[in-house]
Amino acid sequence: MIFKPKENTLEMDEKVIAQIRALGLDMIQHAGSGHPGIVLGAAPILYTLYSRHMKVNPTCSNWINRDRFVMSAGHGSALLYATLFMAGYPLTLDDMKSFRQLLSITPGHPEFGLTPGVDASTGPLGQGVGMAVGMALGEEYLRSTLKAKKEPPVDFYTYVLVGEGDLMEGVSYEALSLAGTLRLQKLIVLYDNNGVTLDNQASITFSEDILKRMTSFGFETFEVEDGEDILAIDKAIESAKNSDKPAFISIKTTLGKFSKLEGTNLAHGKVLEEEDVISIKNKLGVREIPFTVSNEAMEYFANQITSRTMKGYERYKKRIEKSDNKELLTRLLEHNYTISLKNIHLEQENAESRALRDFSSDVISSIHDDLCIGGSCDLFSSCKTYQEGEGDFSSKNRSGKNIWFGVREHAAAAIINGMCLVGLRPYVSTFLSFSDYMKPAIRLSAMMKLPVTYIFTHDSLRVGEDGPTHEPIEQLDSLRLIPGVEVFRPGDMNEVIGTYKAIFAKNEGVSIISLAKTKVSSLPESGISEVMKGGYIACRESGNLQGILISSGDDLQTAIELQKRFLARGVFVRVVSMPSISRFLSQEEKYRKEILPDKGKRIVLESSTAYSYYPLLREGDQLLSTTQFGFSASSEDVLKKMGLDIDTLEKKIEL
Amino acid sequence: MIFKPKENTLEMDEKVIAQIRALGLDMIQHAGSGHPGIVLGAAPILYTLYSRHMKVNPTCSNWINRDRFVMSAGHGSALLYATLFMAGYPLTLDDMKSFRQLLSITPGHPEFGLTPGVDASTGPLGQGVGMAVGMALGEEYLRSTLKAKKEPPVDFYTYVLVGEGDLMEGVSYEALSLAGTLRLQKLIVLYDNNGVTLDNQASITFSEDILKRMTSFGFETFEVEDGEDILAIDKAIESAKNSDKPAFISIKTTLGKFSKLEGTNLAHGKVLEEEDVISIKNKLGVREIPFTVSNEAMEYFANQITSRTMKGYERYKKRIEKSDNKELLTRLLEHNYTISLKNIHLEQENAESRALRDFSSDVISSIHDDLCIGGSCDLFSSCKTYQEGEGDFSSKNRSGKNIWFGVREHAAAAIINGMCLVGLRPYVSTFLSFSDYMKPAIRLSAMMKLPVTYIFTHDSLRVGEDGPTHEPIEQLDSLRLIPGVEVFRPGDMNEVIGTYKAIFAKNEGVSIISLAKTKVSSLPESGISEVMKGGYIACRESGNLQGILISSGDDLQTAIELQKRFLARGVFVRVVSMPSISRFLSQEEKYRKEILPDKGKRIVLESSTAYSYYPLLREGDQLLSTTQFGFSASSEDVLKKMGLDIDTLEKKIEL
Repeated sequence: MIFKPKENTLEMDEKVIAQIRALGLDMIQHAGSGHPGIVLGAAPILYTLYSRHMKVNPTCSNWINRDRFVMSAGHGSALLYATLFMAGYPLTLDDMKSFRQLLSITPGHPEFGLTPGVDASTGPLGQGVGMAVGMALGEEYLRSTLKAKKEPPVDFYTYVLVGEGDLMEGVSYEALSLAGTLRLQKLIVLYDNNGVTLDNQASITFSEDILKRMTSFGFETFEVEDGEDILAIDKAIESAKNSDKPAFISIKTTLGKFSKLEGTNLAHGKVLEEEDVISIKNKLGVREIPFTVSNEAMEYFANQITSRTMKGYERYKKRIEKSDNKELLTRLLEHNYTISLKNIHLEQENAESRALRDFSSDVISSIHDDLCIGGSCDLFSSCKTYQEGEGDFSSKNRSGKNIWFGVREHAAAAIINGMCLVGLRPYVSTFLSFSDYMKPAIRLSAMMKLPVTYIFTHDSLRVGEDGPTHEPIEQLDSLRLIPGVEVFRPGDMNEVIGTYKAIFAKNEGVSIISLAKTKVSSLPESGISEVMKGGYIACRESGNLQGILISSGDDLQTAIELQKRFLARGVFVRVVSMPSISRFLSQEEKYRKEILPDKGKRIVLESSTAYSYYPLLREGDQLLSTTQFGFSASSEDVLKKMGLDIDTLEKKIEL
Repeated sequence: MIFKPKENTLEMDEKVIAQIRALGLDMIQHAGSGHPGIVLGAAPILYTLYSRHMKVNPTCSNWINRDRFVMSAGHGSALLYATLFMAGYPLTLDDMKSFRQLLSITPGHPEFGLTPGVDASTGPLGQGVGMAVGMALGEEYLRSTLKAKKEPPVDFYTYVLVGEGDLMEGVSYEALSLAGTLRLQKLIVLYDNNGVTLDNQASITFSEDILKRMTSFGFETFEVEDGEDILAIDKAIESAKNSDKPAFISIKTTLGKFSKLEGTNLAHGKVLEEEDVISIKNKLGVREIPFTVSNEAMEYFANQITSRTMKGYERYKKRIEKSDNKELLTRLLEHNYTISLKNIHLEQENAESRALRDFSSDVISSIHDDLCIGGSCDLFSSCKTYQEGEGDFSSKNRSGKNIWFGVREHAAAAIINGMCLVGLRPYVSTFLSFSDYMKPAIRLSAMMKLPVTYIFTHDSLRVGEDGPTHEPIEQLDSLRLIPGVEVFRPGDMNEVIGTYKAIFAKNEGVSIISLAKTKVSSLPESGISEVMKGGYIACRESGNLQGILISSGDDLQTAIELQKRFLARGVFVRVVSMPSISRFLSQEEKYRKEILPDKGKRIVLESSTAYSYYPLLREGDQLLSTTQFGFSASSEDVLKKMGLDIDTLEKKIEL
């Protein structure tokens, strides 16, 4: 469907748009860096969206039922801030002036939690698309799950502004493909189609028939031929909202509109010349003095929003008080993500030797919490993270708690970020070696401090026959390196339960569970609550301490066996389990000394690179790890070949 | 275009296909693990491809002008090995019997360099697609660059077998989109369209109109309605070869054909029941005894290949001897990837204070080597890796040495793997923080020991205003953790040149260059050749050694400044530059002790997580690094906020 440009846009609207453009430019000029091209090019899109459609209350920017907007083209931060400022969000001119300055609320790329009206952190391209899909998915789930008599307590649209860069990123294809499959009809993608990338004309790199592609994904597509025509943009968004499919609106814009560099990549990411700015302001009919804002324009903009949304907002507040879903809604309102695992009644006594992913499966199926939904990247059957009896989320069943992400690890990670941003406590599973595919999204989870959970199974060389591509080596360390990410590698059933308890007790921050494929026996002195300390004594020495074996996951089975062998030789060794290194390091020194006294050599055993243990080591201590890729063979053969079998380890340990 | 099934496939062809199926099954049963579904489902595709089309010489499996085949659905390894065995490649029945066993040449997923006829390592889904695109791109470049009078010395097709999983992975979208833009017409994608994934029916997760999608990317598409019909497959491949666009052939198959589990995900990845195998063999008309192979069938298959290709192969050998491109061809034939940087005539004396990426740019533009081509992920203008005067690679210019990958980091990395696999020495650039997007492909580069080069700029918190998403923290360590990857972080012009020299002197193994955005001055005692040792004294102490500052990249500027401050206080400190930690660690102990004597406290300074330096540290040494995300602000403000400014560092250092 194509919307033809019209000439009769309203004068005041144009005035506001001019102000947004000028303010955005001023911010960039003042900061001395930023991206003027998108400010000048896409201002009419943002203005039309906020003035005519966004169901928001600028004075209550975290209203849970607000429409969401994700600036996936995160370099357009100045445009977003200028729009929010003009729209009446609690931002000041001083905030605009401190764009890109230390500790301002207007950083170089949008950061969730910092700026009223910013619904997601963006910047790395494509991530915003994934998060928007997650928000739309979360909305469908919550709308269906929070069953209401009349109006559902959650019922919003998710808009995402994308550029060519976003659409070229694999994560966005993955996410949009899934959005099509799941028919997320309240997702509306606004494509700032300026035909230019940072480096060049987009046609050099991107010659897709983009509307055809989006149709092939199951989207309804719309085209706006002139991005200056707010009536056409308005009409396209209106139609998109009424579509029963997810919608994609391509809006033809001019990068750096009104600049002498307009339409070229030179307008993208550099401060414009002062003369050019003056000339642009003249064309816009805006005063040359920086940061001059028309109160009239601000009021006009803000009034359009409040007159459209405030009644609904007030009505919503009252309605919510009488809701049937008080408990769940309160948690959503209070951003309370914690979950108590009250349904877990497993006892160590009953534990046979089982694979850790099987214990994990028992825990997951016992959650029964409406905020906790998740899925797998085509590996439910291997990772065992299916919530039994809770149904599948699909275009037909919006209350299902199991999401079939497909073989789309990267999008799955970005999508759970979006789900978390609308109040859910999501998780996703795949093999540990494929956590690599998710890295950019995990980093963003961490940056936003989102309480999302990644469940990675097949976590060591013991994967065996599938060979080096499937055998994680550097993954555990790589994940532990991400600031704010807590990696748990439980070693038996108690630790699996303890890990989930520790995770669900947290209200913020990313958690990762690394689970073995192999069967394990219970550790002699393990306990559910021990995990809360990060590390503890899993099997005490039987005499005067001579050495401490520090290990995790299924490597602990080897550690315990080694302890026995040493005992047989009259050497007394302690086994310390370290399900979370970072947590252990944050314990008080007294506790740490209790577990790891100065006495006795420390020997770390982990069948991976294991660099993360270095802070625990002193001169003369030993690191039994590997820095090589694995082999395709039985796990015994692989470990032997790599010198990580018990006989070789025993010989290597110098006590 | 749709090819209708036909009934009259030839009897002997069917016999060979039955044998391939049975042999593949035997391998899996014998190994006790593997993926029978694709063996049974896609055998006719591989057989048709090899018997009717692949231009190969099984006895010379590394013929540089052979057609390439990439099994992107790498779990189909048994099918590939069985096909290669039957086709006359130097593989034995013992090799088939040792499928998935230690040090066999038939590992769980195909591994390049291990098995004759395996053109790429695959397993992590989507990677094979990216590599195939790289091979097709490399072929276009080489065909055009190795200008020949009549027949070009490089002129081959690249085939890639993909499943639903491959097509759902973001990296494959990125790569195929670029293949369409670049019109890589000798790329042929064979889609094993069985409608099933590991976990479920594919329709649950993947409802794209796949042919429409591929058309939107610029592919010509073909459909084969019955994957058992080798005549239809043959005809589709023939048409695809004649297309002037890249081609996509969707072939409707049945996963686990003839098994009682056929058409379900249960046939995908588990050993079948013995009874089922017997029943399948009966249907196939094959003897029940495992590993029974008909010599007649083998000969028939092998003859089809040799009778079609051997004349051309012999003619090629003769033709090559008289080629105009002797030097380049010899390097291709000998897999000689080394490059001498003879055109670099920069002297330290001439070096003003410049950004390291600018020095790097000078080096890159001085390469002038036809094997060395590369590109950027829409960041030529920022990373400065454009080879001046060498033109752009495009659908119009196949000899251009600069590839515009678009905002497709992941595909770019997979693509350079493919380019390297056909003999080129490629590189790609983006920002260091976005190396995360490439991780799965970098891991595969490392596993294949490919001499590819990744150039990552904007390598520290000094990115400043763009904020935490653009500021690398854990990336350097994450990359250093990958087995076999050498990370260089040069600190001045000499080190940049030295780094490129060290890289281009290597004939195998991945190299990464991490480059600062900021301006640097030359280090007092730096030298081009010092980089070959990994670490060296960049500025000697002026008196009795009291401490050693170990640093890299632009952090060295701070180290030198700190050295001066300490000197002013009468404290004698040495500055050691560590452009490659792994290389330094591999030096002889004598040299290491010379640079890092036991005397004097060691202080590592790197504005990142810097865990990789731990092997250099002793008890009491200091690590001045960070484990936090950065901020959007001037680089000075960011460093100060994070305690990495010079004043704070001076206070932190205890000497």
